[in-house]
Amino acid sequence: MNIEVIRQILETTVPFIHRSGLKVLDVGRGHVKLRMPFEGNGNHIGTMYAGALFTLAEVPGGGVFVTGFDVGKFYPVLKDQYIRYRRPARTDVTVEVTLSEEEIARITAEAEEAGKSEFVLEAELIDATGEVVAESRQTLQIRKHGM
Amino acid sequence: MNIEVIRQILETTVPFIHRSGLKVLDVGRGHVKLRMPFEGNGNHIGTMYAGALFTLAEVPGGGVFVTGFDVGKFYPVLKDQYIRYRRPARTDVTVEVTLSEEEIARITAEAEEAGKSEFVLEAELIDATGEVVAESRQTLQIRKHGM
Repeated sequence: MNIEVIRQILETTVPFIHRSGLKVLDVGRGHVKLRMPFEGNGNHIGTMYAGALFTLAEVPGGGVFVTGFDVGKFYPVLKDQYIRYRRPARTDVTVEVTLSEEEIARITAEAEEAGKSEFVLEAELIDATGEVVAESRQTLQIRKHGM
Repeated sequence: MNIEVIRQILETTVPFIHRSGLKVLDVGRGHVKLRMPFEGNGNHIGTMYAGALFTLAEVPGGGVFVTGFDVGKFYPVLKDQYIRYRRPARTDVTVEVTLSEEEIARITAEAEEAGKSEFVLEAELIDATGEVVAESRQTLQIRKHGM
C-alpha cells in the first residue's frame, strides 16, 4: 500500500475536504487516523463548526474503503450518517477507525457474491484533551463495478 | 427583521460555511430557503460531496433560530443530526425549512420557564430536477443565556 498516495487521495481529491485542512495522521489496511484542524473551522462562538466535525467523521468511510478493498473491482456508497454532538470542541479533533480483517473478508465475499454488501462504521471524535466531543455512525455499501 | 443582515450572518459568519458558497434564497420568521452550489462542492465521481449536503441540511437550524427567537435572550445548541442519502446530486441543491408560529411559541414558553427547550427539524434536500437527494433530521436545543 502506498501511504503517500492514499494520504493525497483522502486529503485533496474532494475540494470541500481539502478546504477544511483535514490531515491523514496514520493509515493502514482497513485503518485511518485523521485530524481536523481547529484553525479555519471555528464558528462565531469559538468552537469547531458542526459541519467540520461531520466531515471528519465522514472521511473514514473512504479511508477504510481505499485501504481495505479492491478499488478496481468495487466502489463505495455512503447510505446515511448520524452524528451526536456531546460537548464543544475548542482544539484540533482526531478520529481513528479500523475495520477488522474478518469484516473486510466478510464484506468482500458478500460483495463478490451478491454484487453489494453493507456495513456500519462507528467513530468517536476526540479533542486534544482526550475528551469525546462527538460520536458518529455511518452506513456504507460496497458495490461491484458494472452491476 | 433585516433580511440582509440575516443573509450575511448565515452565509459568512462561519468560515467553513462561507467557503462552501452556500446562499440564502429566502428568509422569513422561522423560515429559510438555502442553496448549496454544485460548483466547488463536487467529488471525484461528479456528484455533490456528502459533507456539502450535510452542511446544507445543518444551516437551517441556525436560520430558524435567528429568525424565530430572541437572540439576546437565547442561544441554540445542535444536539445531533442524521442524514440519509437517497440519490446522487449532480446540480445545485436547495433546502427549505419552516418552524410554525405555534412551535416557536411553545419552544419560547418552555425555554423561558425551564431555561431550555428541545425541538426537531426535518428537511428534504432537492436537486434542480425536483428530486429528493437526501433527507435530514436535526435535534436542536434553545437555551437561555446565563443558565
